[in-house]
Amino acid sequence: MQQTDTINEAITQIFRDMPFNQLLGLVFVRYDNEQVEIHMPANQQLTGNPMLGILHGGVTASILDTAGGLMAVLEAVRHMPDVAIDELRQRLRKVGTIDMRVDYLRPGSGDTFIATAHVIRKGSRVAVCRMELHNDQGTHIAVGTGTYMIS
Amino acid sequence: MQQTDTINEAITQIFRDMPFNQLLGLVFVRYDNEQVEIHMPANQQLTGNPMLGILHGGVTASILDTAGGLMAVLEAVRHMPDVAIDELRQRLRKVGTIDMRVDYLRPGSGDTFIATAHVIRKGSRVAVCRMELHNDQGTHIAVGTGTYMIS
Amino acid sequence: MQQTDTINEAITQIFRDMPFNQLLGLVFVRYDNEQVEIHMPANQQLTGNPMLGILHGGVTASILDTAGGLMAVLEAVRHMPDVAIDELRQRLRKVGTIDMRVDYLRPGSGDTFIATAHVIRKGSRVAVCRMELHNDQGTHIAVGTGTYMIS
Amino acid sequence: MQQTDTINEAITQIFRDMPFNQLLGLVFVRYDNEQVEIHMPANQQLTGNPMLGILHGGVTASILDTAGGLMAVLEAVRHMPDVAIDELRQRLRKVGTIDMRVDYLRPGSGDTFIATAHVIRKGSRVAVCRMELHNDQGTHIAVGTGTYMIS
Repeated sequence: MQQTDTINEAITQIFRDMPFNQLLGLVFVRYDNEQVEIHMPANQQLTGNPMLGILHGGVTASILDTAGGLMAVLEAVRHMPDVAIDELRQRLRKVGTIDMRVDYLRPGSGDTFIATAHVIRKGSRVAVCRMELHNDQGTHIAVGTGTYMIS
Repeated sequence: MQQTDTINEAITQIFRDMPFNQLLGLVFVRYDNEQVEIHMPANQQLTGNPMLGILHGGVTASILDTAGGLMAVLEAVRHMPDVAIDELRQRLRKVGTIDMRVDYLRPGSGDTFIATAHVIRKGSRVAVCRMELHNDQGTHIAVGTGTYMIS
Repeated sequence: MQQTDTINEAITQIFRDMPFNQLLGLVFVRYDNEQVEIHMPANQQLTGNPMLGILHGGVTASILDTAGGLMAVLEAVRHMPDVAIDELRQRLRKVGTIDMRVDYLRPGSGDTFIATAHVIRKGSRVAVCRMELHNDQGTHIAVGTGTYMIS
Repeated sequence: MQQTDTINEAITQIFRDMPFNQLLGLVFVRYDNEQVEIHMPANQQLTGNPMLGILHGGVTASILDTAGGLMAVLEAVRHMPDVAIDELRQRLRKVGTIDMRVDYLRPGSGDTFIATAHVIRKGSRVAVCRMELHNDQGTHIAVGTGTYMIS
């Protein structure tokens, strides 16, 4: 595949074009072939209860699903030499979640939330990813598993 | 429990006070002891891809989780005579999702999205709900199962 | 596809050839294009605790997985005219569960256990089925959702 | 809690008394406060297809569920000083799976199968465990997540 800088820049741009990713404030941070990392700053609008300041469970599910879907696509194009950025973009827009499980481990409090994803099952059509959510203190907030249709 | 009108009004108000429910535009519509119903108007901000106009998977997960958590709490207070609205409010703010699975059946397109939830396992501490998402044309978009800690 | 009698006979025979289905005592009962039904007589060997006489959770998962995988394959071959029984047999042996969730609703007691499955998401490569387990008294014991690779 | 030898012996004995664990040939191997380990020798009766010699998906689910339930109970009694073995036994017989997800990563072939489980969410009533299945060659066959009612 093409050089990392180009890919990272493309993903950053694609993220910016996705309305709900924008609404959540998701920022693509890193991809190293094995794992993607997405950050999300805390924001009172993303809480279920403003007084407790804890992430709404749907926000947790959303960032995990986004990280998993991104990783699934990147794995799919990883071994294709010279994947055009346009193809990456198209695949990212078409990737479909078949199913996802989220386990909520601890309350979602923190200043920044860090989602990571890696592939646990690879295939030509379907990939399964494992996702994790931590806060900036290293507290483990949630884990997820997502099954994605990648072509 | 108290009369239905009071409960419905309280839920409506509690929903309005929850920042992320507001951001998604969730509207509490109905509760009849067996099932809750929540609506969400389509909104370009809730899509993953503005051109396709399809709900981001995280939005689907969010509305299903909200419907399931609400139903779990209502079931818990259902047989308590004269539950004060304040207790309902407190429980709604404290209800915690332990885990949730979402199965995405069809693309999330439509003008209005309708989430319903009913209880499939009752207990004093834990309830399991089954949730469904349809659009206004009756298309079945997603199903979910959530396990909730209710006390 | 070929006439129902031939298909039913083939499934019955394939079931008999699958060692673990035999060990559990699974009996294929019915397939009507929309749903499959599998029965399992109670058996002390299938319990977790012989005194309580309740199905081991793994047995529940096994019969649900079997029903879901069978339904996924039957759906895949349903619209193929003149599917040879050999192809059905081959597909049944190759069908792979990608993931499954089981929700345990009530203790697994009873004389006969009845598993049903129907398809909730169809595709050329992947199908998702919803499974149910009841006992002969109509008690709802468990539900499951399975994602299957069908080709 | 009591000394490790007594606990290990008690678990071994309790396992022997559970009919379905016996049928599968499950052997309790180790518990070190953080993790349990269960082994299962390959056995033609546990396959879906005798020619391929691959574990039936239900067997995989069964050993993962057993490992998770055992770990959940051991975590619950871990901090109780002088837990009587009888109480451990009683709790092991009563532990109930609320829900479980299994992800099948690779075909279940091998001579011995090794299941491990550790706790990812602790609570007084509910524990969530993460389970893994490998074969004796270190191949990662499946992962699971189970939610258990422990009191």
